[in-house]
Amino acid sequence: MINIGVIGYGYWGPNLVRNFIEVPGVQVSMVSDFSLERLNKVQERYPKIRVTTNSHDLFADPQIDAIAIATPVSSHFDLALAALKAGKHVLVEKPMTPSSEQAMRLIDEAKRRNLVLMVDHTFVYTGAVQKMRELVANQGLGDIYYYDSVRVNLGLFQHDVNVIWDLAVHDLSMMDYVLQAHPYAVSATGMSHIAGEPENIAYLTLFFAGNLMAHIHVNWLAPVKVRRTLIGGNQKMIVFDDLEPSEKLKVYDKGITLNGSSENLYKMLIGYRTGDMWAPKLEMTEALRVEAQHFISCIEHGKQPITDGEAGLRVVRILEAATESLKKQGRLIELDLAEVAA
Amino acid sequence: MINIGVIGYGYWGPNLVRNFIEVPGVQVSMVSDFSLERLNKVQERYPKIRVTTNSHDLFADPQIDAIAIATPVSSHFDLALAALKAGKHVLVEKPMTPSSEQAMRLIDEAKRRNLVLMVDHTFVYTGAVQKMRELVANQGLGDIYYYDSVRVNLGLFQHDVNVIWDLAVHDLSMMDYVLQAHPYAVSATGMSHIAGEPENIAYLTLFFAGNLMAHIHVNWLAPVKVRRTLIGGNQKMIVFDDLEPSEKLKVYDKGITLNGSSENLYKMLIGYRTGDMWAPKLEMTEALRVEAQHFISCIEHGKQPITDGEAGLRVVRILEAATESLKKQGRLIELDLAEVAA
Amino acid sequence: MINIGVIGYGYWGPNLVRNFIEVPGVQVSMVSDFSLERLNKVQERYPKIRVTTNSHDLFADPQIDAIAIATPVSSHFDLALAALKAGKHVLVEKPMTPSSEQAMRLIDEAKRRNLVLMVDHTFVYTGAVQKMRELVANQGLGDIYYYDSVRVNLGLFQHDVNVIWDLAVHDLSMMDYVLQAHPYAVSATGMSHIAGEPENIAYLTLFFAGNLMAHIHVNWLAPVKVRRTLIGGNQKMIVFDDLEPSEKLKVYDKGITLNGSSENLYKMLIGYRTGDMWAPKLEMTEALRVEAQHFISCIEHGKQPITDGEAGLRVVRILEAATESLKKQGRLIELDLAEVAA
Amino acid sequence: MINIGVIGYGYWGPNLVRNFIEVPGVQVSMVSDFSLERLNKVQERYPKIRVTTNSHDLFADPQIDAIAIATPVSSHFDLALAALKAGKHVLVEKPMTPSSEQAMRLIDEAKRRNLVLMVDHTFVYTGAVQKMRELVANQGLGDIYYYDSVRVNLGLFQHDVNVIWDLAVHDLSMMDYVLQAHPYAVSATGMSHIAGEPENIAYLTLFFAGNLMAHIHVNWLAPVKVRRTLIGGNQKMIVFDDLEPSEKLKVYDKGITLNGSSENLYKMLIGYRTGDMWAPKLEMTEALRVEAQHFISCIEHGKQPITDGEAGLRVVRILEAATESLKKQGRLIELDLAEVAA
Repeated sequence: MINIGVIGYGYWGPNLVRNFIEVPGVQVSMVSDFSLERLNKVQERYPKIRVTTNSHDLFADPQIDAIAIATPVSSHFDLALAALKAGKHVLVEKPMTPSSEQAMRLIDEAKRRNLVLMVDHTFVYTGAVQKMRELVANQGLGDIYYYDSVRVNLGLFQHDVNVIWDLAVHDLSMMDYVLQAHPYAVSATGMSHIAGEPENIAYLTLFFAGNLMAHIHVNWLAPVKVRRTLIGGNQKMIVFDDLEPSEKLKVYDKGITLNGSSENLYKMLIGYRTGDMWAPKLEMTEALRVEAQHFISCIEHGKQPITDGEAGLRVVRILEAATESLKKQGRLIELDLAEVAA
Repeated sequence: MINIGVIGYGYWGPNLVRNFIEVPGVQVSMVSDFSLERLNKVQERYPKIRVTTNSHDLFADPQIDAIAIATPVSSHFDLALAALKAGKHVLVEKPMTPSSEQAMRLIDEAKRRNLVLMVDHTFVYTGAVQKMRELVANQGLGDIYYYDSVRVNLGLFQHDVNVIWDLAVHDLSMMDYVLQAHPYAVSATGMSHIAGEPENIAYLTLFFAGNLMAHIHVNWLAPVKVRRTLIGGNQKMIVFDDLEPSEKLKVYDKGITLNGSSENLYKMLIGYRTGDMWAPKLEMTEALRVEAQHFISCIEHGKQPITDGEAGLRVVRILEAATESLKKQGRLIELDLAEVAA
Repeated sequence: MINIGVIGYGYWGPNLVRNFIEVPGVQVSMVSDFSLERLNKVQERYPKIRVTTNSHDLFADPQIDAIAIATPVSSHFDLALAALKAGKHVLVEKPMTPSSEQAMRLIDEAKRRNLVLMVDHTFVYTGAVQKMRELVANQGLGDIYYYDSVRVNLGLFQHDVNVIWDLAVHDLSMMDYVLQAHPYAVSATGMSHIAGEPENIAYLTLFFAGNLMAHIHVNWLAPVKVRRTLIGGNQKMIVFDDLEPSEKLKVYDKGITLNGSSENLYKMLIGYRTGDMWAPKLEMTEALRVEAQHFISCIEHGKQPITDGEAGLRVVRILEAATESLKKQGRLIELDLAEVAA
Repeated sequence: MINIGVIGYGYWGPNLVRNFIEVPGVQVSMVSDFSLERLNKVQERYPKIRVTTNSHDLFADPQIDAIAIATPVSSHFDLALAALKAGKHVLVEKPMTPSSEQAMRLIDEAKRRNLVLMVDHTFVYTGAVQKMRELVANQGLGDIYYYDSVRVNLGLFQHDVNVIWDLAVHDLSMMDYVLQAHPYAVSATGMSHIAGEPENIAYLTLFFAGNLMAHIHVNWLAPVKVRRTLIGGNQKMIVFDDLEPSEKLKVYDKGITLNGSSENLYKMLIGYRTGDMWAPKLEMTEALRVEAQHFISCIEHGKQPITDGEAGLRVVRILEAATESLKKQGRLIELDLAEVAA
């Protein structure tokens, strides 16, 4: 039996509690939150779970094996560090931390203590992203040319982080997993349209070794909601539309063909190839349920999570660099993710 | 009666001939093309039109008042200059010229000779773009925050120009007309995925004075065709989807509301407002027909075309700068369009 | 303070409890269900609500003013009759009863006792249906020509009622309210594809006085989900797509124009008129909440509900007649709804 | 070399000429039409084709082997009969004739003279319909349960035939080919909304042996254009949307599963099965080109066309019966297509 403590019972915490409870061999022992009103909700629905306004009660409880942190990003570092120091495994919301230095510090702490440190990149555990990863890994698309994602809608404006930290974090975490490749630099542009508020629209270009590139468009001020990712390979291409009620993922057997020798480029003939489209059936289990099981399995078997601290760090590093580039109107900012990945 | 000569009878020339013929008071006198096969087609369909393989026959013909040029971009400058020097009004395909210097040279020549110089930015003459211009001009959207356009599909790869010159030219010419504002700088990223070929994917960010920005995404290697423009204003927002069979233009009465004083930003409350959506009926006359009439009308009344040489120059200047920025991975390149606009 | 009792806590009962609780001046006093497990859920979530396995406890409780019945249709008549005899106002699930005779019996009982009898035609209380009613009532569409509705998807097969009683009941109740006109006859076709099971596909045509007709297509065995209603008027037309995430209701300023005299019909010229499309903002309050408030308001002010027993009866009468017609492969079955409406 | 004559150069005739010309071994010799203006167009575009206002010139010309008839339906019988009597093979527009008696008369005449008689059911020759036929024939869908088709839009009202003869003829000809099964009876409903004009909205239900049924919805007065066919099988299901720019045909691996014995029906459990969706690549050759080649091939090799006179007759018989049923508000009208098919 693994005992879990949950810090933060606002928007996401209830989902963590609900999903961890359903994992066999897991017990949610304690929930902490500043708000008594929220803690009342915990007690109403789960009378056996202890509640506290003091997160240190969780660190101090010897029966608690692991702690899930679902608080605002500014508190992630302190809480996660305290949890690790108390010998607890940690699952922390995304973005992992407000800075890459803090993320590295947490990774070090977890390694030294041999504890599991996992970042809650929830979308990675959806059936659609798992299937995209499988297609890319099996060379089902051929060589990958580009990854292009759009995530726009009206609201919800954040006051403390810009739209990159709020929305692009989803795309970056999915891309990190699907491509298993790390960009070496980023160029970002964007703008705030409300005086004094963080940027509400942004465009990120990510450069990879070889001829792979990625682009992410995020916007809090769009008239329509779009959640669409294109992945172009030299053999097949994917359209992932997360708003479709079914057939979210479509694989197109389309591309170009080249005839001619590379010495004689002007005579090279580019042809177009179209074939079947295929929408594979996707696993429909709730992503957070899959993720909760994975976290427990990593604890039980000493495995590295697929969204480990390093994955969290890579995403934070890109968020930092993108925000810097955005301030400088697209100036290229280099990333050192190769080391991170090592 | 105004006599028109047409140079080039490949993809676009036949459309020019067909539309000019239908304008009252216009006669298409002569067509030139290198290809005898194409000229045969002219004669089959329009026995009264004279044909020639030598474009100088058009310049030399005293009866010809105006010349429309529908040849590859590399020949635009020489042909347009010769036509102007021969005293002919000129309608030239987009992009106007391969360089902004050449575009300026043509503008000067036309001005000195008091001739009409018009660039064939066809989409400007569609009902949808005319309606967007009207909505922006009448403050129907409020202050404009952003212009975001996507133009992607599979093919047709060009060998001589990159995807910016091929596809973004449409968006830039539409944006130039709809916004009537000129960006001061551009940052572009992109890539070629076929060795030795021009860039087939590109992303452009355009910076304007105030808090207006624009972004254009063009791609020759996408699995699906997208032609979609979002325009965000602080009162209303537009979605223009050119692939919709009807209701291409939708106006959303959506936006944010601000409560609180600007001194106390952290207390500022951002609310969301949604209202009706409205798809205005659009004028359905073929754009090229409208454009042909406008060209003739400018000649007859000595008016400046709405897509004049200056508009053509501004677009070329952005294409040049975007290509330079793309080579430098997003480096900001300044534009001097204010002077151009003057 | 009005006290409500709820019978049945399966699929729909929890929604009734949740919504009635939020209506000011209302208290949910007691819930009955055969299942102790379900009653436990009531107690967990609402400790103040009394529970019982015997619905007669609700009839016998002098404090209970009104009873909401959310049980299988076969039990509606007995429960509603007992409730009325006990002097309680009644809200009963749709379809109101398995036969029109039973529906008439309930209407009589309620009238004699001066009690409110309301049928839970939930969709009538959605913003979309309210708006459609408003447009039809205000002659916004002109004369109505047809009402055409499609409600198909895969599942859930019922064992005790056919697809008409399960799905067409929604369309019939919406149509009854929107058109405020009553068909005089029905022709229906359909089929069962699973031996021994009720019909899983059906098509209903409803004939009205004048040149109005309606058609409903329902199917439990369709590969895609469709929820779409067209209403054609001689001035405007509506498309209501309930699966759209936003802009569910679209009003098209489209139609035909007639030129010529009616004496000379063969010379009559039919023209086509297209104008703007408009998607009005819809009230988004949960329909059941609106309905619960309406039920309470009818009790407090002695009003007739907009989905009263007569509306329930009209729908049941059509369901009966349609099922009879279906068995006879489309034979026209007359309805006597004019009396019902009186 | 096979010589073709074409009667009628209105809407469809030019497509026949254009496509026959491109079939190897075929020459279009003569075109007849009442209108000199139309004949001038023939001569302008095809100077070698002879023209005449008298269709008898085609019958009398010994060099002409086959005649294609693209005139209003009221003239089909006389023209086709004259052509057959003159020993010409015949391709006639759909609907084949205004009555089934006339269709039978043409079939007899062609048989006796050993001539090819083919009906221009163009959609049968599209890649989509060919693929649907292949899927049904190969048992790719399992047992077929239903065929449901919707063909609605605004306009074009016909004065001489109702919407069934104008639009449903397409669905009936496609269905006849795809299912290769013949309905034994039809029930139809519909209405005219314009005094003195034919019915502009209609719904047809077709009954087949076993548990197969079909339904067709046609409407000249709809605010949106729909061209959608569902085919439900017990193993897979098809959605064919002819308005999609690509992936017009989608095959869903969806259906129900049955557990339990047929003796104990109430205990039978119906489960739902969902799998991949697949959009096969479709042959994109213009349907009329494929059809023209097929007609020529039938002439050259003495084959029976896949849309032969019997197919044309079956469609006409259903159109007749459906119109009769419509007048009688859905009364079931029996068909004797089994004999026709023999």
